[in-house]
Amino acid sequence: MRLSIEAQLDYTLSAPADLLFALEVAQMPDQILVTDRFTVSGVDVLRPVLGEESVGRRTWAAGADRISAHYSATVDVDRGPVVLAGLAADRLHDLPPEAVRYLFPSRYCEADRFETAVCREFGGLNGGDLVRAMADWIREHVDYVPGSSDANTTAADTYVSHRGVCRDFAHLLIAMARASSIPARMVGAYAWGLEPQDFHAVVEVWLEGGWHLVDATGLAPTDGIVRVGVGRDATDISFLTVFGQAQLNSQQVRVERMDA
Amino acid sequence: MRLSIEAQLDYTLSAPADLLFALEVAQMPDQILVTDRFTVSGVDVLRPVLGEESVGRRTWAAGADRISAHYSATVDVDRGPVVLAGLAADRLHDLPPEAVRYLFPSRYCEADRFETAVCREFGGLNGGDLVRAMADWIREHVDYVPGSSDANTTAADTYVSHRGVCRDFAHLLIAMARASSIPARMVGAYAWGLEPQDFHAVVEVWLEGGWHLVDATGLAPTDGIVRVGVGRDATDISFLTVFGQAQLNSQQVRVERMDA
Amino acid sequence: MRLSIEAQLDYTLSAPADLLFALEVAQMPDQILVTDRFTVSGVDVLRPVLGEESVGRRTWAAGADRISAHYSATVDVDRGPVVLAGLAADRLHDLPPEAVRYLFPSRYCEADRFETAVCREFGGLNGGDLVRAMADWIREHVDYVPGSSDANTTAADTYVSHRGVCRDFAHLLIAMARASSIPARMVGAYAWGLEPQDFHAVVEVWLEGGWHLVDATGLAPTDGIVRVGVGRDATDISFLTVFGQAQLNSQQVRVERMDA
Amino acid sequence: MRLSIEAQLDYTLSAPADLLFALEVAQMPDQILVTDRFTVSGVDVLRPVLGEESVGRRTWAAGADRISAHYSATVDVDRGPVVLAGLAADRLHDLPPEAVRYLFPSRYCEADRFETAVCREFGGLNGGDLVRAMADWIREHVDYVPGSSDANTTAADTYVSHRGVCRDFAHLLIAMARASSIPARMVGAYAWGLEPQDFHAVVEVWLEGGWHLVDATGLAPTDGIVRVGVGRDATDISFLTVFGQAQLNSQQVRVERMDA
Repeated sequence: MRLSIEAQLDYTLSAPADLLFALEVAQMPDQILVTDRFTVSGVDVLRPVLGEESVGRRTWAAGADRISAHYSATVDVDRGPVVLAGLAADRLHDLPPEAVRYLFPSRYCEADRFETAVCREFGGLNGGDLVRAMADWIREHVDYVPGSSDANTTAADTYVSHRGVCRDFAHLLIAMARASSIPARMVGAYAWGLEPQDFHAVVEVWLEGGWHLVDATGLAPTDGIVRVGVGRDATDISFLTVFGQAQLNSQQVRVERMDA
Repeated sequence: MRLSIEAQLDYTLSAPADLLFALEVAQMPDQILVTDRFTVSGVDVLRPVLGEESVGRRTWAAGADRISAHYSATVDVDRGPVVLAGLAADRLHDLPPEAVRYLFPSRYCEADRFETAVCREFGGLNGGDLVRAMADWIREHVDYVPGSSDANTTAADTYVSHRGVCRDFAHLLIAMARASSIPARMVGAYAWGLEPQDFHAVVEVWLEGGWHLVDATGLAPTDGIVRVGVGRDATDISFLTVFGQAQLNSQQVRVERMDA
Repeated sequence: MRLSIEAQLDYTLSAPADLLFALEVAQMPDQILVTDRFTVSGVDVLRPVLGEESVGRRTWAAGADRISAHYSATVDVDRGPVVLAGLAADRLHDLPPEAVRYLFPSRYCEADRFETAVCREFGGLNGGDLVRAMADWIREHVDYVPGSSDANTTAADTYVSHRGVCRDFAHLLIAMARASSIPARMVGAYAWGLEPQDFHAVVEVWLEGGWHLVDATGLAPTDGIVRVGVGRDATDISFLTVFGQAQLNSQQVRVERMDA
Repeated sequence: MRLSIEAQLDYTLSAPADLLFALEVAQMPDQILVTDRFTVSGVDVLRPVLGEESVGRRTWAAGADRISAHYSATVDVDRGPVVLAGLAADRLHDLPPEAVRYLFPSRYCEADRFETAVCREFGGLNGGDLVRAMADWIREHVDYVPGSSDANTTAADTYVSHRGVCRDFAHLLIAMARASSIPARMVGAYAWGLEPQDFHAVVEVWLEGGWHLVDATGLAPTDGIVRVGVGRDATDISFLTVFGQAQLNSQQVRVERMDA
């Protein structure tokens, strides 16, 4: 499907600061970027830098006072439905280096603490069937509650509180997958059909030699997801990282289908 | 039943230190202390102090080098089986002050984080039926694994790891009960029938105007439990608190039935 | 000095809930309550319950929808300046039971983690001189920043972040005092001279057989502090504990001197 | 200098498990690997995989029962003394992608919590002078105490406890450097002159376009450090990661100078 994407961020800085934006759609085989345009007012530097795993790119800016960023893109997403069922997990010693690092616990995904939980709940399942069951379990056991978590909330916190937003759903799925020795990484994304419209966070798991998208929230169809960047967890995919103090004034995301 | 209790602790201090022992059986209507004797070698002070809620007593000691404590008691436990089923929860505004403080989160029992979990899992249950269901749930979902927790492990940690020892089972039950507005406190105890023999930790919940014993581990029959002290959580019922550095050499507990 | 105190709380409940107010001035030798009046609209129960350590009293309420509480009091504070310098610490085995519990770590005051910090920073000091030095250190090393902490912030968090509000200052002082085996408890209070006017949190340490007030923030003179309640940490002294969900609409505190 | 390195690990697995060894010396311009040999008995798979940032390599093994690994190497270290003083910090927007990821908080290095601490303690310093001052501060304020930390200990924990081992010193320096927007990563290493001999953990900071070694413990001379691998923190540089349960039987490291 062809999607039109718009994102707008408006911030006020209390002092001159560097900012790292991750708003730009990644050029990838299953999501072809037709055209895009990124403008930021109120800054005197604008410098691109590759994303993690060379997926997508980010943009450095340096400014003071008021910063306004506007991103618009047209992208063709051509991705069949993601079918996890039946996909086998790779043997650990066959994993390439770029998957190995996604086996380990990270700041928001304490995989090492979920080993017994995963074993008790999903014993007997493997590979794609296991990941599918985990995502279903999370959707069933965690309530989607805007405002219920913050920048310190981890997968273990979410497992206890049974509440969270998309990043928490993603962190919990990642922690569970890694606890079962399945590499899992976080994906910052735009998503068609998400209500209310906002930035989205989903997951990729490594099965049968490649990465496969999973949305633990089930709030948006996988074939309307557009990746911005990937990383170990929310730390790596923040759409804006401020090296200093900033005040959010407004933020808007709009994803629309152009061909239907 | 009449029980004979023996506890022996042997420690080495690296420097002069104060110690607070909580080893002595509490004199209470359902556990009559017939006789006991507490001796500590290697100390130059030995001073009793009342326990929390005036339940039982503790003993201060001050020593250096090697400390050996020996406690022996004969106690008659006369307590019918504790039947929680059907007991009603008191309305909050009818609670006496000594129950109110056991409604709140404490160091090891983050009751405030369990509200949704408790609501989802036990919705519709109340009072004694609810506590019974919580204890059953814990026994079913947490593995008793010696060495799986340490002095930092909280109820939330146990809920995630699904592993723990008696203090962890108790903390989790306390956190869940408080999350449902049922006052719950921790009880340090000796227990007949516990295998292997050791100090034990159980729970008391406030229902229908009084405290009721529950052993979340189910490892020992309630009618063979002998209270030493009570408190908010493990912080308050440690059988030995050292104000300094100590090295455990050995520790032994023996509880035997004398009348059967 | 004679003080006039007014506190006003306005909340909206999303469902019927119990509330525990701790707003009433405690009657104590150094703060004589001349007259007070506590009214709550929108509730159908109003029941008093003693405070922790029998200091002051709290009030249970049960309501739905909108709750408005208004408290006004006239109180004579007659307390000389608190001089900590020179006060000796009691030997541990001389402490009464009501001081012993304030030696231990609690939810927000991880005393056990501060032992080396305290030893390195304040080695050689004891008793009141030590507490004085701790309060000075905190005032010098922690910035008072409204909004910099939340309901999960502990003393250790504040030690790392170097930022906090009055409850964080109090928690840190309590943790440090207990780490030095000096009993310390938290005091919820009104304070004359505090800018901006708000509820206040200060500390009491046990020295030479009694409790002594310390304000780690130094923002209000000790002789204008009026205790509401005491406890292990913020858990016990919250001016309003809601057993359910509530939305704050407004909250106001006013303390004025009547005799000057 | 020419060094001879030997490492020996002996483990017992309770069930068949995969293992990832990171023992092999990285081939790098300032540490030329002359010869090495890695053998593992008790395994049926042995497969190399590149290290993080393509620094060094790790080895997968899969086995059951008893695992014995032996690594020996001869390496020429030719590295002048590392002089941080005077080195400038790069502007953020000039950082290459492989440095950007080392600006962010990670599991053990909560950089975001140290901003005020760093600003208060080291205000006015920049670049290499700042890092030098941080390392000195850590050495002065943290006691090296074997056994004082565990696999959960973070930089913030170490800042509070003032105690740790080499990994804790490294984590704290990394957290502080990142809090000042200086990229910092962890280095797993062998170290000549370390007493007692063991695996070592040090830090690399990015200044003036390249990585520079710093040993926050000061326990071993920088010119005798031999890198094995790098990563965000201890998660990435563990010399052995077991995907299952293992019991350590023995572990030995020996680093000797061959040319002096």
